[in-house]
Amino acid sequence: MSPSPALAAALADTAREIDARFDALLAVPDDPRADLYRAMRHAAIDGGKRLRPLLVFATARLFNCDMNCAGRVAIALEAIHVYSLIHDDLPAMDNDDMRRGRPTVHKQFGEATAILAGDCLHALAFEVLSDPATHPDPFVRAELVLDLARAAGPAGMAGGQMMDLEAERASFDLTTVTRLQAMKTGALIMAAVEAGAILGRVPPEGRTHLRGYARDVGLAFQIVDDLLDIEGDEALAGKKLRKDAGAGKETFVSLLGVEPARERCRLLVDQAIAHLRHYGPEADLLRDIARFVLQRDH
Amino acid sequence: MSPSPALAAALADTAREIDARFDALLAVPDDPRADLYRAMRHAAIDGGKRLRPLLVFATARLFNCDMNCAGRVAIALEAIHVYSLIHDDLPAMDNDDMRRGRPTVHKQFGEATAILAGDCLHALAFEVLSDPATHPDPFVRAELVLDLARAAGPAGMAGGQMMDLEAERASFDLTTVTRLQAMKTGALIMAAVEAGAILGRVPPEGRTHLRGYARDVGLAFQIVDDLLDIEGDEALAGKKLRKDAGAGKETFVSLLGVEPARERCRLLVDQAIAHLRHYGPEADLLRDIARFVLQRDH
Repeated sequence: MSPSPALAAALADTAREIDARFDALLAVPDDPRADLYRAMRHAAIDGGKRLRPLLVFATARLFNCDMNCAGRVAIALEAIHVYSLIHDDLPAMDNDDMRRGRPTVHKQFGEATAILAGDCLHALAFEVLSDPATHPDPFVRAELVLDLARAAGPAGMAGGQMMDLEAERASFDLTTVTRLQAMKTGALIMAAVEAGAILGRVPPEGRTHLRGYARDVGLAFQIVDDLLDIEGDEALAGKKLRKDAGAGKETFVSLLGVEPARERCRLLVDQAIAHLRHYGPEADLLRDIARFVLQRDH
Repeated sequence: MSPSPALAAALADTAREIDARFDALLAVPDDPRADLYRAMRHAAIDGGKRLRPLLVFATARLFNCDMNCAGRVAIALEAIHVYSLIHDDLPAMDNDDMRRGRPTVHKQFGEATAILAGDCLHALAFEVLSDPATHPDPFVRAELVLDLARAAGPAGMAGGQMMDLEAERASFDLTTVTRLQAMKTGALIMAAVEAGAILGRVPPEGRTHLRGYARDVGLAFQIVDDLLDIEGDEALAGKKLRKDAGAGKETFVSLLGVEPARERCRLLVDQAIAHLRHYGPEADLLRDIARFVLQRDH
């Protein structure tokens, strides 16, 4: 099944806007840092589904936020995501040669430049968020930084990546795999939705339903990832598949089985949509995103 | 020559406070991330001169800032410094086995954990700064984040590190080496002093003298580093020396010669102190720090 026309348009708009913003942010300087910027561009431009930026836009739209502010927040979220992919691909980590059908950054530019390119995107994300151009109210800027820093650090994405490394040595149960994934991919998906709510000045206690939505979408997204790792097409994915089983890692699919994993995914998507029941048609894009998670083939 | 009694006391107090703060921030969790935290502690606790935290404290004291706020800012600055050391030591970068007389993080915990430990300290720095506990005014928090993110990213520390990598292949002149060092080590030293001024609510146009002080101290610090790389004692330094010449890198010393480099250092320290002429005895600690840069032997 294809995305709904509204979602297809939003995906295309998001891809275009994120590419344009990275292009402007990462203009190659005429000095010895040129390769550093080329490496960041290689990883950041023309790549990926842009799910996190799309979630920022879709949530910001709920609250009629300024869409230039949302664009800056979206690029910060995606910069963190891209930095994590560069570092995850390194030989000492997942040791991947291909990503999105292209050589990984360290394959193309060398390991040292790849490490620094990741570090630079990491810092740039916080530079963008804390810049007055992102939002006139410093309270909003500081909250956006706190939201993203927590999601990226040891209690979020990087902590989840550490658990993932340990997963090759340990034998995790379903509770631990769920926690691992909630940190490794869920935290940044949650941060994207929360960032939209922060821009909309929704106080923390008013974000419960959106957090529930993000948690369920994030988990469903990861289960589909596990299913695609087993059943997917490497050419379509643009990267190596079937690595989890090879590494002896427990996943949702190894612990639940293929059909029950697929069924859990459907339940999570229904549940994600149910969290949005207090919103009207302005949340249709968020609903479409949840449904689309089930249908993606790469 | 030893540090002045006031500076000796400030160095000891800073070391104690930074260790205590890292100890609390990096409590080892009872889960698969334990090694990640142990790796961060290994790098962060009981190490280094704590120059950047000391500069935060000394500048914050000029403006009678709350010293708990300054402590949180100091730990964020030092977290960025420590993350950069972890990544710089990696095999793909400087490939160092020893740091501060101990095995480097990747030697002790493996490369993957070292990469993630650096990434986590990077994120934690921004989490600490943007937390309301750091300062009640969100404007101050957002400005602290912007100050540090700029200093850490491609226009600052990480960009300088990239230039340093290129220095092995190119033959840089004095202007380029000065710019490289102003980015690689100078930017974070500048950010430490500016952070103190931000806490003191000094507007950007009122920070000119402090910025001048920081620029000169940072440059003097780096020239002394180059001199120690040639003349220093490896046992005292706790790390490998004489690497620049081996790598064919131009430094202040290779470009200027030993005695002229030492002379330039003295001039920079005089100049740094001259920048403080509008301040009274409340800036004596900053003056002592500038003088001490000349006298350090490791």
